[in-house]
Order: sequence, then structure tokens, then C-alpha cells
Amino acid sequence: MSRPLVVDVHTHVYPPAYMAMLRARKTVPYIHDPASGEPRLIILSSDDDPSIPIDQRGRPVDSSYSDTNVKLAFMQQHGIDCSVISLANPWLDFLDPAEAQIWAQRINDDLEETCARVTSSSDKALPLKGRSTLFAFAALPLSAPDPEIIVNEIKRLKTLPHIRGVIMGTSGLGTGLDDERLGPIWAALEETQLLLFLHPHYGLPSEAFGGSEAMSRYGHVLPLALGFPLETTIAVTRMLLSRVFDKFPRLQILLAHSGGTLPFLAGRIESCIMHERKFVANGGDAPGPQRSIWEVLKTNIFLDAVVYGVAGLKAAVAVGGGSDRLMFGTDHPFFPPLDEGEKEWLSVTTNYQAIDENFDGEKEALNAVLGGNALRVLNLE
Amino acid sequence: MSRPLVVDVHTHVYPPAYMAMLRARKTVPYIHDPASGEPRLIILSSDDDPSIPIDQRGRPVDSSYSDTNVKLAFMQQHGIDCSVISLANPWLDFLDPAEAQIWAQRINDDLEETCARVTSSSDKALPLKGRSTLFAFAALPLSAPDPEIIVNEIKRLKTLPHIRGVIMGTSGLGTGLDDERLGPIWAALEETQLLLFLHPHYGLPSEAFGGSEAMSRYGHVLPLALGFPLETTIAVTRMLLSRVFDKFPRLQILLAHSGGTLPFLAGRIESCIMHERKFVANGGDAPGPQRSIWEVLKTNIFLDAVVYGVAGLKAAVAVGGGSDRLMFGTDHPFFPPLDEGEKEWLSVTTNYQAIDENFDGEKEALNAVLGGNALRVLNLE
Repeated sequence: MSRPLVVDVHTHVYPPAYMAMLRARKTVPYIHDPASGEPRLIILSSDDDPSIPIDQRGRPVDSSYSDTNVKLAFMQQHGIDCSVISLANPWLDFLDPAEAQIWAQRINDDLEETCARVTSSSDKALPLKGRSTLFAFAALPLSAPDPEIIVNEIKRLKTLPHIRGVIMGTSGLGTGLDDERLGPIWAALEETQLLLFLHPHYGLPSEAFGGSEAMSRYGHVLPLALGFPLETTIAVTRMLLSRVFDKFPRLQILLAHSGGTLPFLAGRIESCIMHERKFVANGGDAPGPQRSIWEVLKTNIFLDAVVYGVAGLKAAVAVGGGSDRLMFGTDHPFFPPLDEGEKEWLSVTTNYQAIDENFDGEKEALNAVLGGNALRVLNLE
Repeated sequence: MSRPLVVDVHTHVYPPAYMAMLRARKTVPYIHDPASGEPRLIILSSDDDPSIPIDQRGRPVDSSYSDTNVKLAFMQQHGIDCSVISLANPWLDFLDPAEAQIWAQRINDDLEETCARVTSSSDKALPLKGRSTLFAFAALPLSAPDPEIIVNEIKRLKTLPHIRGVIMGTSGLGTGLDDERLGPIWAALEETQLLLFLHPHYGLPSEAFGGSEAMSRYGHVLPLALGFPLETTIAVTRMLLSRVFDKFPRLQILLAHSGGTLPFLAGRIESCIMHERKFVANGGDAPGPQRSIWEVLKTNIFLDAVVYGVAGLKAAVAVGGGSDRLMFGTDHPFFPPLDEGEKEWLSVTTNYQAIDENFDGEKEALNAVLGGNALRVLNLE
């Protein structure tokens, strides 16, 4: 079918500089090159099990993670004109504090160069539709010893022509996103108006799923399908409750996986806040949030459309007050087809179909969600 | 405003027999009667903190928990014709195995008698609309030493005229609802076609929310607003993954809080299952579920409409394939008004308003959600 401009705002890479850094490490996360076959990424402590031969630990990282040509072929296959690439988890959270700044600069420069090379090689006389372009969300040196280093990197990123925001996990400086020490970082993001792409990374304990034994019965389903979305929801709710959105009302955030579960739970969150006696507004002594989650969802938050169904899209549209805060994404290179011969990715077509069905007959909304919103919000032209 | 028949399917009680049992206990959960003021329910291990004077531990349990007249006044105030009452958490999960059967029978008989007394005292010549009636979801002796005891109680419940189902938490026999040992219980529920009302109860570890210190900053908001819904979602997903719905395809379940987050996450769950290499269908060696979550949501699952917003309702309607699997509820006596003088409960009006707004102009769907579905599904006439 003929599509309008399609922008993918949720698509990951491990740029060469990042791969090199992971290869030099011997503790989680690290990359191990087996005697034969693809390199293995050992990303979780539970992957680094000494009873498993090292050549089989973790997961394979094929060229789709780091080769720009594979990304471009994927885009072409799926009718995607422009991708806003971001570092895949676990980003730079684990770096030795002394090395965080230098690696962040190196990796972000690597991202910028990749985007510049691809985008400038496409014919600029053409509109964005029809030529393959790349922009990026950069990574922050969150383990740096001084928040000033993080702030400086945010300001430097603003000067790079293809960087449109930063990606961040839910642990912040190590204790979650309601950490007071994040204040200068929120302020810098507000000032630069760089979009914060908030993304989960196995942040829930296995006890939540009945322990590691119960979890392993079902492969990765429980942490991926349920843990990731709740992690995002908890992170944003802690930001709300700690008054981040009261103090930094111009913060702009893109939430992965359509907000985790935030659109569905917004009403319950608001109701629980209205009934919490601890908060000043309800007669308690803790300040509590001033702005409601409904308002924050309509002014501070954007959602990707990576929710694999019409039911989720309906809730996502409803909390955004319409379709202009929702943006197409793929989560590439994750959830590839099980059959390697398959060129069309089921994970991508599922999201396309849900969007087509939900916006059937609403051409303007459809175009906005597929690419128009990203074009406007991320200033991609 | 004039309403059609309104049935509340999510409304809790601690019947007198249950209160007496809790008063006799000295370990969590238990009730303590302070020198003055209302009895205190110490329900969580974290409530039972020796550094807190015992008269202040836990939460007050006022007459709204156990006095049927308070329930009836609440119903009248909010235009509710019929309530399907259920034991509030933690149900009977904690009982000494030797005592589980006797307490379950006693408490379930207590529920049946309460319903019979109220319902028979209302004028049976009138239709259900306009007279106050009670039905109940009973509790199961899950800690009983032999599953046969639980099965027998289910069969006995089927003979009680006002019992329409059973309420259950997410721990089952102690290890979650994917426990093979629950087979006979699922079979008995299928056979009797008693509805299983699945309800959460602080089942997530505090680490999920950043630890107990982070949690206590925000009162009960994180575990109640986010923990409860995810607990329900995890429980149902574990049932799905362990093939409970394949083996017991006639099981009928009502999920609290509109399914927790299940309607929003159904697409992601299905996608993760389709991409999980561990399952036979994908070339692995674990059986994996045969029926999809979409099908289960349309044939095995009903949702209450306790979701406090239009966004959540839209997703709930979408996964049910329409409005005939959604039923009004209040969660009474939880989330009372902060101002005791307030007669209208904000938590209830929020849900009424969301339903009114979502089904504006769809009178048939509105009537179905407010009472018609419960009437049909629970055979209340």
C-alpha cells in the first residue's frame, strides 16, 4: 500500500564505538566473541551463569544491531522514510564514573556521524518522504561523578545537527527518576528542549513474576511483556509524585511502548492521589503533586505507537486528547521474525495494522501518527 | 439523574464471622481494638511494626466494612440496586490448614444469610430495579490440606441461593495461579459455572517501587495504583502461559480493576508469545499457550468498570469485542471520601462519569455496563 511519510521514533542501535567498549569488558554487560557464530551479548547478571559455556551465554548480536546498511534495508522493506535511532539498553548506566564522559561523547559523536553520513548522502532536493534519513536520540553519561558533566553533554548535544533528544532508562543516577539530584538534568533538558526518550530495562525484580523459576518457564515473556511496561509506568509515576512535572513544566518526554501502562492506569493513579491522606492537599504533610497526570499526559508526554493492538491505541489516543501526541515506532532490531527467511517483520506489521485499523477513515490522524507528529515534534526537516 | 438497573459487582465486606476470626488472631492479619476509637486492621507485615504503638498500627476498620446497613445506605446514596458482595482481602489465604474448611463454611454461610435476609426483606413483587438486593462471591479454603476440601466447598456453594461465584487472590495455593495443583479447582469452577472474581492483594515486592523508603514517600499510591493492577495482569498471564485456558476453556473469570492492565497489554503479551523461541509453536520445547489472549478476553474474561477514566474503558471495551463483558463496580468500602461529611463518594462518581461519557448516546451499552451484563452473567433475577 502507498503510505505517507513514515518516521520510526523507536529503533535501536549499538554503534561501533559502543560495540568496541562492550568487547573490552569482562563483566555484565559485555560482548563475547565465540570461536564460531555471532558475537554474544551478556546483558543481565542472570545471563552470566558460570554453568553455561561462555560461547552460549546471553544472546546473539547480529549485524542488525550495529550495521547501518541493515537498518536502512529494514527501513526500505517496511516503508520507513526516517528513523530516529537510539542506543539500545543498557545505554551507559554501568560505566566507570571516570570514563562516562569520554564514552558518552565518543558514542554520541558516532551516532551524529552515522546520521550525517546517511542523511547527507540522500538527495536533499527531495522532500523527507522518499529518501532514507536518520536522526538520533543520544545517550547520557549518567554515572559521571558530577551532574555538571551530564548537563554539559546535554548542552553539547544541542549543537549536533542530527541529535533530537536523549534516551534514558528508569534508574537515573541509580535510585530512580524521583531523585532530587536529577534537578539540573531536568532543567537542562527543559532549556534545550531536547526530547527525553524514556525506556525500560529489566527494572523489576523476578519475585514480581513468581521468582526466577516461574519466569524461566516462559522464556522472556513475563519480564518483556509485563515488566518493561510496568517499569516505565512506575518511573513516570514516581516523577509525578516527586513533583518533577510541577518543577519542570516544560519537560518533554517520549515514553516507550505507548507509555507502558500509563494510559490505562492514569485514572487509577489520579484517584489514588486524590485519596492519599499523606498529601498536603488532602490534609497530610507531604507536598504531593500539583499537576494531574491527565494534564501531564497532554502537555509533557508523547507516546510511541508500539502497543501491538487497537485496544492500547485507543487508550493512548484518549489520554493525549487526540492523535497528535502519538508516533509510530518499531523497536527494531528487537522482535525479529523467528524464521530468518521472513522479510516482513510480524512485530512491525502488527503495529502497522493496529494503526491502520484504529485510524480507518481518519487520514489526517493516520498521517500524523505515522510521521507527521514526529516531523513536527522533532523538527526533522 | 435517572439510572437504569445498577449492579455493583466489586464491593467488599468483612462479615461478622470474619471480624471475629481476625480479632482472635495475634499475627498478621489481625484486628486490634484500641482503648478508644475504631478497631485497627493490621493487614500487612509492614503494618505490624513494633516501633508503632499498637493502638495506631494498621488502618481503622469502621462499620462500613461489616455493617450491612452501612452498605445499603451507600447503595441508596449512589443509585445502586443490587450489590454482589465479596470478602475483602486477604480472604482466607492465611488460615491454619486445619481450620480453613470450617472458617470458609462459616463465613460463606454468613454471607449467604446476609444476602438472604436483605434480599427477602425487599418486596419480591417488584423487579430487581428499585429494591435493594444482595448476592455474593464466596471465599475458598485455599490453605486446606487437601484440594478435595476446596472442591467440595465449591460444590456446596453452588447449592446456596445467593452465591454467584468465588473471590480469589493471585497466590492460589501459595505459588501463583499457574500451579498444576489448582487443576481440580479450575475443573470444579468450570463444572459449577461459578464465576471466579480474581482480585489482587499487595502481591508485588517493594523493590519494584524503589524499595520501602521510596514507597513510603508517597503513602499507598504506588502499590495501590500500580502494584494491584500489575499483580492481576501477571496472574492472568501466568494462567495463560501455563495453558489453564487451554485445559479449562469454559472457566469464567471476572477481573478486578478492569483487568489491571491486561486490556492495554494484551497486544504486547500476544506479540511476546509469538516471538518466544522457547515455545513449541516457535520451534522450542515448552508447550506454550494454544489459545490467544485475544480469544480468552472474549470468551473467558469479564472486566469490572473500576478504571476511573474513559481511556481505560475504551481499551476494556475493545478487548471484550463490545460492551457486554464489562460490569459496573465501586470497590466500596475502599477509597471513601476524605471528608467524612461528604455523602457522594468521589471514587464512585469518577467511575459513573467515565461510563456516562464513554457510552454517551449508546443507551443499550450504558444499561448493559451499569447492570444488564451482571444481571445476565450472574443470573440475578
